[in-house]
Amino acid sequence: MRIGVVAPSSRFPEESARRVEALAARVAPDAALHFHPQCFLRHNHFAGTDAARADAFVEFANDPGFDALWFARGGYGACRIAESVLARLGPAARAKAYLGYSDAGFLLAGLYRAGFARVAHGPMPQDVARDGGEAAVARALAWLVRGDRDALDPAIAPGLPHAAFNITVLGHLIGTGLQPDLAGHVLMLEEVSEHMYRTDRAMFHITSNDGVRQAAGIRLGRCSDVQPNDPDFGESEEEVVRHWCARAGIPYLGRCDIGHDAGNRVVPFGPAPQALSGAVAS
Amino acid sequence: MRIGVVAPSSRFPEESARRVEALAARVAPDAALHFHPQCFLRHNHFAGTDAARADAFVEFANDPGFDALWFARGGYGACRIAESVLARLGPAARAKAYLGYSDAGFLLAGLYRAGFARVAHGPMPQDVARDGGEAAVARALAWLVRGDRDALDPAIAPGLPHAAFNITVLGHLIGTGLQPDLAGHVLMLEEVSEHMYRTDRAMFHITSNDGVRQAAGIRLGRCSDVQPNDPDFGESEEEVVRHWCARAGIPYLGRCDIGHDAGNRVVPFGPAPQALSGAVAS
Repeated sequence: MRIGVVAPSSRFPEESARRVEALAARVAPDAALHFHPQCFLRHNHFAGTDAARADAFVEFANDPGFDALWFARGGYGACRIAESVLARLGPAARAKAYLGYSDAGFLLAGLYRAGFARVAHGPMPQDVARDGGEAAVARALAWLVRGDRDALDPAIAPGLPHAAFNITVLGHLIGTGLQPDLAGHVLMLEEVSEHMYRTDRAMFHITSNDGVRQAAGIRLGRCSDVQPNDPDFGESEEEVVRHWCARAGIPYLGRCDIGHDAGNRVVPFGPAPQALSGAVAS
Repeated sequence: MRIGVVAPSSRFPEESARRVEALAARVAPDAALHFHPQCFLRHNHFAGTDAARADAFVEFANDPGFDALWFARGGYGACRIAESVLARLGPAARAKAYLGYSDAGFLLAGLYRAGFARVAHGPMPQDVARDGGEAAVARALAWLVRGDRDALDPAIAPGLPHAAFNITVLGHLIGTGLQPDLAGHVLMLEEVSEHMYRTDRAMFHITSNDGVRQAAGIRLGRCSDVQPNDPDFGESEEEVVRHWCARAGIPYLGRCDIGHDAGNRVVPFGPAPQALSGAVAS
């Protein structure tokens, strides 16, 4: 099981790669991790220039020697390379799994829209730096290597297609060529480090889109590190999401187990496995 | 000339209303300003509940006794009432002018999309609180009362249709029922209090929309109070906008004279007046 790691967004520290390699040797000895040197480049906000990040992604994605492509971390930058990357992916890219979250959602969305079958929202190598983050990284490896059902969000409904996004990231791809068809999907959402008025505004945006209104329902993960709202917004994140679901005629289905934290579970895009009882991906 | 003032977004202080009334008595004695009592309501983040704000807007907009409706201020909240407001506007609402900017852009967009002919981006009563803000308010009144051409952004190109928005606000209405047809328009953009990576992300979003890509070009106003980016973003706001215009095939037309400041000029939506040589609105 060979897993390639690339960093389409913000700069990734080499020491995190070493920690993840050591952890993987213990918890997933069958996994061979390959961090692309691009992960450690620095260009302003990013892990290298747009060209360097796009080229690294395309190189590993098109390499039939890798079974999976793992996003090193989020931050910002994936939207800047999405168009270039998606135009260059070949058959070998379609055969592999993709795992990430947060800013990686721009590429997950584009891959899923393009019909890639093994796209998933879940922990990334940089999560190793969180309190308890080794559990998140081990969970991601358990899904990548063994398709471990315990890695999955228990809120996943058997038989229904799912998708998961950071609220701000999904908002910023509405109405673009990256927006996937979410008709009939359970849409799972999470947020970090935003003011509640911004989350409210983003939920207006997301739930006012005709495509999103075709979703089977919305579930809310965790909204962490909420910034102080002046004046107090007066509504919790769940009240905000319930409000906009009701306004848009989208069923609100309750909470789910995703977020910018060590507890973040894996959500494969598309139809859920039968009864969540077996391996998800080979 | 009767001008109604409503506050679809954040709370508006009564003392600002008094200052604007005193200023109007000096600089625009023909203007009769009427601040709706809703402006001074308080409900969490907003100038009253969604229902109170929507009802006040609809009441004044549908009142044939008013020649213009002026947004008291921005902040946040207009998107929450836009759908309710737009569904209830009658013929008298179509006959009047609308002036505001920032969060008011949600309603300006929806009004313009609905075919309202006298929608404009420009200063609001709350600008009186800025350094030099009396000039901004006087400029708005000069346009509302006399159609003063000196109030207009000198970058306006005679004969071409224009529209102006805050970048974050326009981003949040892409792909919704508020997004106006911008084909052939000069799109003028400004920003305030955002990190450069957020402006970059919003410009990806805006310029990746097929409708926006039909614009005749984009002009950039001022981006003020830019928040510290860690690490430094390495590009100015003009470099960011040039980058995304080039990527999207939208001509970048240079700067314009709008922004969250006392210098903010008026931009009427739709075709510019002939040669900017006469009155804009009666």
